[in-house]
Amino acid sequence: MNIVIIGTGNVATVLGKKLVSAGHHIVQVVGRNVAPAGQLATMLGSTSVNTLSAINKNAPFYLIAVNDSAIANVAKQLSLPGSIVVHTAASVSKKILKSISKQYGVFYPLQALNKEKTEIPEMPVYVDAVNEETLEILIDLGKTISENVSQASDEDRLKLHVAAVFCNNFTNHLLALAENYCKQENLNFELFKPLIKETATKVMDASPAKVQTGPAVRHDQLTIQKHLEILNAYPSTQKLYKLITESIQSHYS
Amino acid sequence: MNIVIIGTGNVATVLGKKLVSAGHHIVQVVGRNVAPAGQLATMLGSTSVNTLSAINKNAPFYLIAVNDSAIANVAKQLSLPGSIVVHTAASVSKKILKSISKQYGVFYPLQALNKEKTEIPEMPVYVDAVNEETLEILIDLGKTISENVSQASDEDRLKLHVAAVFCNNFTNHLLALAENYCKQENLNFELFKPLIKETATKVMDASPAKVQTGPAVRHDQLTIQKHLEILNAYPSTQKLYKLITESIQSHYS
Repeated sequence: MNIVIIGTGNVATVLGKKLVSAGHHIVQVVGRNVAPAGQLATMLGSTSVNTLSAINKNAPFYLIAVNDSAIANVAKQLSLPGSIVVHTAASVSKKILKSISKQYGVFYPLQALNKEKTEIPEMPVYVDAVNEETLEILIDLGKTISENVSQASDEDRLKLHVAAVFCNNFTNHLLALAENYCKQENLNFELFKPLIKETATKVMDASPAKVQTGPAVRHDQLTIQKHLEILNAYPSTQKLYKLITESIQSHYS
Repeated sequence: MNIVIIGTGNVATVLGKKLVSAGHHIVQVVGRNVAPAGQLATMLGSTSVNTLSAINKNAPFYLIAVNDSAIANVAKQLSLPGSIVVHTAASVSKKILKSISKQYGVFYPLQALNKEKTEIPEMPVYVDAVNEETLEILIDLGKTISENVSQASDEDRLKLHVAAVFCNNFTNHLLALAENYCKQENLNFELFKPLIKETATKVMDASPAKVQTGPAVRHDQLTIQKHLEILNAYPSTQKLYKLITESIQSHYS
């Protein structure tokens, strides 16, 4: 498939690479900033332009991979009748694209994409479209880069995003809090990395609810009290410690 | 080293296996319940007894790997002058062992140990002891099973435990909440596993604070509001969503 990519961030870059290695051709990269657009185009064996008015209008497929908040503005400036146009956002309705073309939809990779990484992780893809014909094309495209392609409506995708926030953004923040605390307390955060890795590895083949351990689930109030005292110097971390402990204790009571 | 292991749970089992494969000899397993004690002893090429009064008193080293709350009771029943006695708990003082021997200490593996798993993960070990001589023996023992052996006082170990709770227990609970929500909402939790894996992989060579993404850190209040509405049906999960979002926003503001 010949594809125009709009955007130069993490999603644009990683999806671009993945699509190219699946045999697709990126006919153009559109990015406001000259340098990143040029770099991404070079990486994908393509060319770049820096304004939406200079977009190649003859492609069959347009992938809008810009910030959620920028999609509406991009949509306003495009008219691509006869082409398929998708965005990649979890929590934005597909309808935001309806003025661009009659064949619009969403191509949402359920993964934390990072353009700095050389190894591209496995990514389930959720697609949605305004009609069956477009949906089938999106499913076929998805299957060229992922073993797991499913349909998810706007509402489903929003629901998926909530779970993704817990699995990725929130767990990462707990690690960031732990890292910050380790720095302050002169503890070597590096030595927690095997534990972090094992925590994720463990749930690859076990339900997280079945492998919950720690002072909270065993109602070890003595240890919890000692931990809360240590966290006196970290009020917001302490507040989270309390609330997550309560959540664990009510979840397993 | 000839070692008696007291306990038959996750820590006793995994440390036992690790010690055996490092060339140590488990001379006895002590466990209240006949079947698990026998099974562990067989696995470790050892024999078992089921009461502390039947313990082999001639070993140079005793590893007490029982629940935190059971250590005091075990200690009360043992007198092993001339031997080294350690427990494996993060949040319990080494002094709890002082009535057993003059050479006591702690051997704390910073890892989520699970006896069901065949592959044993990398585990940094923190040791502590009442005197230098015992400490050196513990460091040497640690080095036979880990590349990272450090000393940590009772207070340091308690501090380490707080960070471990965040890196393991609390992140696991967020995954459990996500899993439960997926079940209720008919979303396939299996498809979040590549994301969970990538979340941990990402911080192996990057600071979690530097790779924070999501609606909270980009102050995307519109998406946050949509997510909170979806979580109306899950009040305690919603409360956590709010508090962690606030924590992220104050952390990066």
